[in-house]
Amino acid sequence: MQRGDGPVLNWNSPDSSIALAESWLRNSPADVPAAASRADLAERLNGILSQMLRSGQNLHHPHYIGHQVPASVPLAGLFDAVSSVTNQVMAVYEMGPWATAVEHALVRALCRKVGWDAEASTGLLTHGGSLANLTALLTARNVRLPGSWEDGAPSNAVLVTHPDAHYCVTRSAGILGLGSRQVVKVAIDPQRRMDPDNLDRVLTRLSGEGRQIMAVSACACGTPTGAFDPLEAIATVCERHQVWLHVDAAHGGGLMMSRKHRTKLAGIDRADSVVWDAHKMLFVPALCAAVLYRNREHRFETFQQNAPYLFDPSVPGMADIDSGMRTVECTKRAMGFGLWGLWSLFGEQIFEQMVDRVMDIAQRLYEFLNDQPDFQALHTPECNILAFRYVPQSLAQAADSVIDAFQRDVRTRLIQSGHFYIVQTTLDNRAALRVAVMNPMTTTDDLQELLAAIRDTGQQLNRQDNVAGDL
Amino acid sequence: MQRGDGPVLNWNSPDSSIALAESWLRNSPADVPAAASRADLAERLNGILSQMLRSGQNLHHPHYIGHQVPASVPLAGLFDAVSSVTNQVMAVYEMGPWATAVEHALVRALCRKVGWDAEASTGLLTHGGSLANLTALLTARNVRLPGSWEDGAPSNAVLVTHPDAHYCVTRSAGILGLGSRQVVKVAIDPQRRMDPDNLDRVLTRLSGEGRQIMAVSACACGTPTGAFDPLEAIATVCERHQVWLHVDAAHGGGLMMSRKHRTKLAGIDRADSVVWDAHKMLFVPALCAAVLYRNREHRFETFQQNAPYLFDPSVPGMADIDSGMRTVECTKRAMGFGLWGLWSLFGEQIFEQMVDRVMDIAQRLYEFLNDQPDFQALHTPECNILAFRYVPQSLAQAADSVIDAFQRDVRTRLIQSGHFYIVQTTLDNRAALRVAVMNPMTTTDDLQELLAAIRDTGQQLNRQDNVAGDL
Repeated sequence: MQRGDGPVLNWNSPDSSIALAESWLRNSPADVPAAASRADLAERLNGILSQMLRSGQNLHHPHYIGHQVPASVPLAGLFDAVSSVTNQVMAVYEMGPWATAVEHALVRALCRKVGWDAEASTGLLTHGGSLANLTALLTARNVRLPGSWEDGAPSNAVLVTHPDAHYCVTRSAGILGLGSRQVVKVAIDPQRRMDPDNLDRVLTRLSGEGRQIMAVSACACGTPTGAFDPLEAIATVCERHQVWLHVDAAHGGGLMMSRKHRTKLAGIDRADSVVWDAHKMLFVPALCAAVLYRNREHRFETFQQNAPYLFDPSVPGMADIDSGMRTVECTKRAMGFGLWGLWSLFGEQIFEQMVDRVMDIAQRLYEFLNDQPDFQALHTPECNILAFRYVPQSLAQAADSVIDAFQRDVRTRLIQSGHFYIVQTTLDNRAALRVAVMNPMTTTDDLQELLAAIRDTGQQLNRQDNVAGDL
Repeated sequence: MQRGDGPVLNWNSPDSSIALAESWLRNSPADVPAAASRADLAERLNGILSQMLRSGQNLHHPHYIGHQVPASVPLAGLFDAVSSVTNQVMAVYEMGPWATAVEHALVRALCRKVGWDAEASTGLLTHGGSLANLTALLTARNVRLPGSWEDGAPSNAVLVTHPDAHYCVTRSAGILGLGSRQVVKVAIDPQRRMDPDNLDRVLTRLSGEGRQIMAVSACACGTPTGAFDPLEAIATVCERHQVWLHVDAAHGGGLMMSRKHRTKLAGIDRADSVVWDAHKMLFVPALCAAVLYRNREHRFETFQQNAPYLFDPSVPGMADIDSGMRTVECTKRAMGFGLWGLWSLFGEQIFEQMVDRVMDIAQRLYEFLNDQPDFQALHTPECNILAFRYVPQSLAQAADSVIDAFQRDVRTRLIQSGHFYIVQTTLDNRAALRVAVMNPMTTTDDLQELLAAIRDTGQQLNRQDNVAGDL
């Protein structure tokens, strides 16, 4: 297949896709192998693999510039597939000695990238950024609200965060027993960054009200526009108030690999906990998320349990090696294989090159948009994320609701065509198109083609509306 | 490689393994590709893959009869690897249409196997049984303790479970804000099954004390010995007390595929929620766990949130299709590929054949142990799990602590030799050896070899002790 051949997204309606997936199950053989001839079986296997490969999203297509999931490096996929095929897992060291060793090595390397001493800090890998944020905030709860593990969360506890925090962060207050109402959102500046002065006032007020702070959760970067909170200033405020600082760097963490861009996370080394997804800006397949703790002594605060069939009391030192004492999961995939293999094979510069490349392409898109009167970039890109609107001359005077609906309609038609995959967001209650450049192979030519494709799609829609209006 | 060639477990000390994994990172190239010759790169790639393949646990070895993770069917590994290599993920339908469709088809098929109407019930796939149990119990909390999502868990809430419940079940009380002290364990019978009469008394007492029951969590089966709780009788008690019945069938769920064995789970269709791991007795690679709800109306009770960039308010019906509204994870792997592919290719009878086979082998082991005076089976196997002790004549009169230490020492030496992989457990405060037959290729000859290997290992240990005693 040529670069960019075929559709990005193989669109079918949900109902038809589900019916098709069910038909494969329903029409499966009534008896196993013996009855089926080998040729039949090979043909069916071929059909199954073809179905899987031609019915999904093609993340490696250079026109995939949608959600924050990468065109993973193919060799990382191969390393990950070793886990699939050999079913390498971990929970206790002896169950997956190599998977466990790889995780420890990676956690130490990532801690160093944050700016921590690998002996004083620690962490773990877990299945995705949402579970990672939940794990870190559970640790914060247990450390900062003593007794909450044994007796439940106190009713005066509160989580302080950002209006643009990923939904998993606010969800965690509901999951962890604080209650979803116990989330306080700090005001953001026009660049959608948490305002440290406002944070200071919020913490002072909460303290005056006798509220206990579970954690302050900052964004590096925020999901809607990729804005980085000013971590140095936030850390200073958190230190003054002696509260736990959590940084959700699930997406932006990758910039720590780039000499050019890592200053955007300056101050992250002052956080108590950090979440960093390798399956975003380190370009490995999903899922591989890291939870990192600055203080090693917090590592067993997440849970306080024992299971005799897993944790042998005769070798107590193993709790520090085994993963099960520190993760929500008992059995985990060997999810570090992709990142460890890539890093070992190419060296860490491969991450820097890819990060710098997608950052650059997002910047170029911003410049292209600024050159076009019918496109509006909604912010300068701080990361590889850019939100914008397409407002053709014909809609320049239209009501907001019409322009908003037009963004959604254009996007739906565009992605269902298979030509490009982009996403949408809502900023200040207005609909916007949104791009995350997650493939280092996406070029400036692709970006020019995107603008043309959006225009074409918009014109088709307008023509349809006009025709419908004429009838 | 021949069947059973080479070691099961490639044993190295944790420190040496971690140091080795770190050395690969540290010695990675200082510059990416351009500088490295292709031959060097190919050699390094080969070294990395070899390292991964020769340093772990070989789950496909017929002598792997340890933790409840299977020798996964190789083709299931291939299907799973499609997800690794193409990075197929899901959260919203458009992001992974095929992964989403496959999950819906599987959930419907699994609900039917539980005995439910696929239109009235529903569920989801998640990364492992621990996260699955947490998800189901969070739903139970929100349904049965109204207001707990918004305002936190009430202080009079309690989780009722089983002394042998997996640690993730009791952990959930600590995570979800009830407090780990708010776990009440129901007495078990000599076969380690929850006693329904005792459950009835416990619920009556708790109700009299004004406690609110989050859920009763039953085991199908328990981890230590594979005992199945009497679900019909337990369901009757739960219905009488109008409490949520959760069944952790992570391991035993697979028996629902077997006409011969599914009666052991009779009554499971009366549960409110069920957890069933495909990466255990359905022989697919980790992780692929299902959470199933009898009442479809509970599907959005787990979380109550909105994220504009994921859930498009202009197409509200998609919340039922998209996975993100129902799972802790936002991005998920296409974790259903292995199970769906296997089921589609061979038909569901493949699961029945494998389940019946491993059940039969465990039964044969029990018979072999009963024929040997120096081995003690500690229970009749209800599942493919068997706990036992090796007590040679020389130790027949020894103190319990000596016999316990001997079990641990024999096992440690045996697994580090690479000859067999078995685990250990603690039953009634006594150490025991424990086997889970997770490979349909394990034969009765392997079992005979296991008994001989344990005897040899014990004799070596005794000789060492004697020599040490003589010095």
